[in-house]
Amino acid sequence: MSVYTKVLPHQLTEFLQNYTLGQLEQFAGINDGIENSNYFVTTSNGEYVLTLFEVLTREELPYFLELMAFLAEHEIPSAHPVADNGGHYLRELNSKPAALVKRLKGASVDIPTARQCGEIGKQMGRMHNASKEFPLHRKMVRGPKWWRATAESVMPQLSDQGAELLSKELDYQFSHLFHNLPVGVIHADLFLDNALFVGDELTGIIDFYYACNNFFIYDLAVTINDWCTTGDNERDLRNARVLLSSYQQERKVTVEELDAWPAMLRAAALRFWLSRLQDKYFPRGGEITHIKDPDEFKLILLNRVENADKVSTMWDHA
Amino acid sequence: MSVYTKVLPHQLTEFLQNYTLGQLEQFAGINDGIENSNYFVTTSNGEYVLTLFEVLTREELPYFLELMAFLAEHEIPSAHPVADNGGHYLRELNSKPAALVKRLKGASVDIPTARQCGEIGKQMGRMHNASKEFPLHRKMVRGPKWWRATAESVMPQLSDQGAELLSKELDYQFSHLFHNLPVGVIHADLFLDNALFVGDELTGIIDFYYACNNFFIYDLAVTINDWCTTGDNERDLRNARVLLSSYQQERKVTVEELDAWPAMLRAAALRFWLSRLQDKYFPRGGEITHIKDPDEFKLILLNRVENADKVSTMWDHA
Repeated sequence: MSVYTKVLPHQLTEFLQNYTLGQLEQFAGINDGIENSNYFVTTSNGEYVLTLFEVLTREELPYFLELMAFLAEHEIPSAHPVADNGGHYLRELNSKPAALVKRLKGASVDIPTARQCGEIGKQMGRMHNASKEFPLHRKMVRGPKWWRATAESVMPQLSDQGAELLSKELDYQFSHLFHNLPVGVIHADLFLDNALFVGDELTGIIDFYYACNNFFIYDLAVTINDWCTTGDNERDLRNARVLLSSYQQERKVTVEELDAWPAMLRAAALRFWLSRLQDKYFPRGGEITHIKDPDEFKLILLNRVENADKVSTMWDHA
Repeated sequence: MSVYTKVLPHQLTEFLQNYTLGQLEQFAGINDGIENSNYFVTTSNGEYVLTLFEVLTREELPYFLELMAFLAEHEIPSAHPVADNGGHYLRELNSKPAALVKRLKGASVDIPTARQCGEIGKQMGRMHNASKEFPLHRKMVRGPKWWRATAESVMPQLSDQGAELLSKELDYQFSHLFHNLPVGVIHADLFLDNALFVGDELTGIIDFYYACNNFFIYDLAVTINDWCTTGDNERDLRNARVLLSSYQQERKVTVEELDAWPAMLRAAALRFWLSRLQDKYFPRGGEITHIKDPDEFKLILLNRVENADKVSTMWDHA
């Protein structure tokens, strides 16, 4: 993670006095996430994850914590935040906003099976349906305006070929901005490492800190770009079909969404190419342990551009 | 940690096929230790810690793994390594030597209570007694020869005052080398963060990777220098007395050991001052997240030098 706030045992013990969770039994820092400091905390009552938010502010956090509670209560596999004795999800620890959530069973996978793809498609569909009743609202932070500003700042670092691809893609996206697609709460970062499985059973969706109100179809594009780009084209297409048809069992996509699909896949690839370029060339201060390779998403974008006429086949079995 | 080897979920799943531990349920990298990469692994059979050894070699590791098994079997609270289907504790993962050990309950404390000090004293005494039957042997790596070599390499980085303290201490230690003190297997790094507690109950001693055959009294000095230097002199003296008298309930120290005590406390402080200076000025490659402050041990050394005539009072109640 980029920044890491150390929590000493006596600080945790004091913090836990604001909850009714019994005696501390285990405590360990985990190497997960890029923007938060995370700890496993086990008490005589159960297993929890303690998160200290290094980037998000006290003003932004209620949206995410309320969303997690809402989804868990709607039986979307996700971690319910734990309320303190005053009924609040959000506290402070070592001068950082901090929250406890229940720890879920399950581990992420790096090469998903078709069944796992079906599970995530289904739960994303359920999440999109349920979200219609969620009362809070948050704009997408990493949308078109952010693409343009970030592209400007990383452009000088790119090769000629990279700069040309980026600049052409921005032109394409800004001439294909959508306004009338179905919207609601989306996860917006549902990569493989944000889904936990035991066998083929999806036990949890985690890391909701990019969630926002935006196009449902964009959420699918982000996920397909990560889950169904393992390099084995046959498997990737088969898995994408399973994912999208399972999604449609829950929520039928519109003709407009299908038309937008090629552009959405490109937009989703662009967004992660840009954020990884930003992390690489403008790392935040602190202790950096994970810099992900931007080229992975440059290649996905190139692939989406070159195969724009073929990507609708992912929906064939839908 | 200084180096961190990433383990992907499919690599872990494949690795676990060498064991009979059931289905994978949880998997997370932990931010612990300086010289190894550690993961929590939960299967349907239980909770384990997976360690990839970044510095120690295949030749060195059997001493530590056999020692852990030996101590756990002698009911010293410690983690038993898990044998693979071929009966071996040591395997390889991602080109690193790797082992699974049972995960213990408990969390470390940073400000120990008198009872916790008593517990660690007692279990150290039991460990020293039991170790007489342990058949393997390992020399201390961070002894006088290493002090001298390391002092030479860090000396140019020190202030005049620091260099003078270091050089005088080396002179003192080399004119006070001991040869006839009781020896056996010692942990040699039993700091607070290597002991796990639930309440005042010691549930585990961990991180045996500096264990070696050397003076029992040195092991006590290392532990007292960390556990009983919280800055509250009254508490520190009281806790040291409890720790040492609990130790003596298990193993009575000799007159020679008591005479060596002031020099041992200084030797133990010197060893950790030097290793922290080395980590600071000559960090190993890789992703560095923990550099501990060397000055902490410079101050402990200074304190031990200045109060050499008083440290025997720690034994008053023994």
